[in-house]
Amino acid sequence: MILKIKTWSIAFVLVFTIAIVFLGQKITISANNSYPSIENIPMPQVEQPLRILTPANEIFNIASCKVNDLGFTIAQADIPPGAGPIPHVHYYIDEWFWTPKAGLELFHSTRQYPTIKEVPNIAGAGRADMYSIISQANQIIYSPNFYVHGFVNPTTETLPITFVWLKNDLAPVFPHDDGGMRDFFTEVGVKITDLNNLPSLNDKNKNAVVTEAPRYGMNQSSYFMEYVNSIDNQFPEELAKMQNDEDLKRVIEAVEAFNSGDKSVSCS
Amino acid sequence: MILKIKTWSIAFVLVFTIAIVFLGQKITISANNSYPSIENIPMPQVEQPLRILTPANEIFNIASCKVNDLGFTIAQADIPPGAGPIPHVHYYIDEWFWTPKAGLELFHSTRQYPTIKEVPNIAGAGRADMYSIISQANQIIYSPNFYVHGFVNPTTETLPITFVWLKNDLAPVFPHDDGGMRDFFTEVGVKITDLNNLPSLNDKNKNAVVTEAPRYGMNQSSYFMEYVNSIDNQFPEELAKMQNDEDLKRVIEAVEAFNSGDKSVSCS
Repeated sequence: MILKIKTWSIAFVLVFTIAIVFLGQKITISANNSYPSIENIPMPQVEQPLRILTPANEIFNIASCKVNDLGFTIAQADIPPGAGPIPHVHYYIDEWFWTPKAGLELFHSTRQYPTIKEVPNIAGAGRADMYSIISQANQIIYSPNFYVHGFVNPTTETLPITFVWLKNDLAPVFPHDDGGMRDFFTEVGVKITDLNNLPSLNDKNKNAVVTEAPRYGMNQSSYFMEYVNSIDNQFPEELAKMQNDEDLKRVIEAVEAFNSGDKSVSCS
Repeated sequence: MILKIKTWSIAFVLVFTIAIVFLGQKITISANNSYPSIENIPMPQVEQPLRILTPANEIFNIASCKVNDLGFTIAQADIPPGAGPIPHVHYYIDEWFWTPKAGLELFHSTRQYPTIKEVPNIAGAGRADMYSIISQANQIIYSPNFYVHGFVNPTTETLPITFVWLKNDLAPVFPHDDGGMRDFFTEVGVKITDLNNLPSLNDKNKNAVVTEAPRYGMNQSSYFMEYVNSIDNQFPEELAKMQNDEDLKRVIEAVEAFNSGDKSVSCS
């Protein structure tokens, strides 16, 4: 009898262990699973696109649009090896990342920091446990406000990314009514006049990203680990399933309308 | 009978689960456990201490000693908030970190990268899974060559750290016969003449740390995540138990001998 129970128990433990391993795999997404993707995010065809080199060494092509209550800025960007913004939090905008090519590494918290005065550092609200994901070709990642996030290009070739910054209900009115991102980058970055001859960044630009961020509804860390407690490279389902296709569709339709000559949409 | 087995199985699963949790705690060290510590690492009392501001914004007070086959450099350092070297690997030296005050955050891999040509990045040998630890007062952490490591000051006050760099058998002869660290920092840093008026660092200094590192037996990443795949904030036993008290004792005895006037030890 005792032997029988022992055998049963061993079998049970085995099944239990296998179940744990299986469950552990089910709650993460891997490179082989499906992911939200999109074929294209169109760029508003404005007369004079604004080109900016950001202090995170990103090469931006920026345009902003407005139609009714919808205000947003789109930035098509080239990210050289090692470039990309270190972790930060947005308050006035919700953001999408679209990666036409695979290879950029995005970082995201599951914890939200809902007030701008609660900075996610050791001296403030505490640092975030982060999750990383290497983006797939055409993948779209949605990042609403309040989360710590950032990305880097860990490869040896320049990679493209397109950002959509959509102003939300917390945003005060900024000149482009986009939640402030365009004016932020205009202030802290350097205007590019010749793509073959990029301007140089100085410490003033790099410091400004951190010091000016709150004025534009952001908390920006000044070194990589300032807002980071740990980094797990298994992106959890909780983050993978965050999507907002409805608003993204409204943005894309507005751009397409503008590009087709619809005068109700203004872009610049 | 079936019910009885079910009860037994549930009990077994409970015990099993508790055992896993207990085991999980046993293989990590926490702030409440004991840790290797030392009361003091003496500084060689040389006539003209070398003071250097490093590109990682560390304020170094450096002295190097030589006695028989023992060659080492000690640096007493002040680490301002956010400062500290991002991940790198040493080949010619073994290193100790001594933190008189608590609060610095150290990062360390368990994987070794035994040849300098195998760079721990995505394009090379692959990035490292890192483990972090917030240092305790007087804690001593030993880091032999080949491991990816680095540290940062995540607090809002300047914190002290003392480094011991002991040349190992792989080291070629450098002017101070210390495995090259003193000459490396002399080349890439900026000499401090007035501690109240620190020099400024430029991009040339910051680039030199990366480009000149291999000449001094190091691989140095150029951005935080270049050598990092993940960061777990549970420091594993495997790393916690790495110690080399014998060599550290030889170093300290050599410094004490020099400071007592023993002419067989030369320090400068």
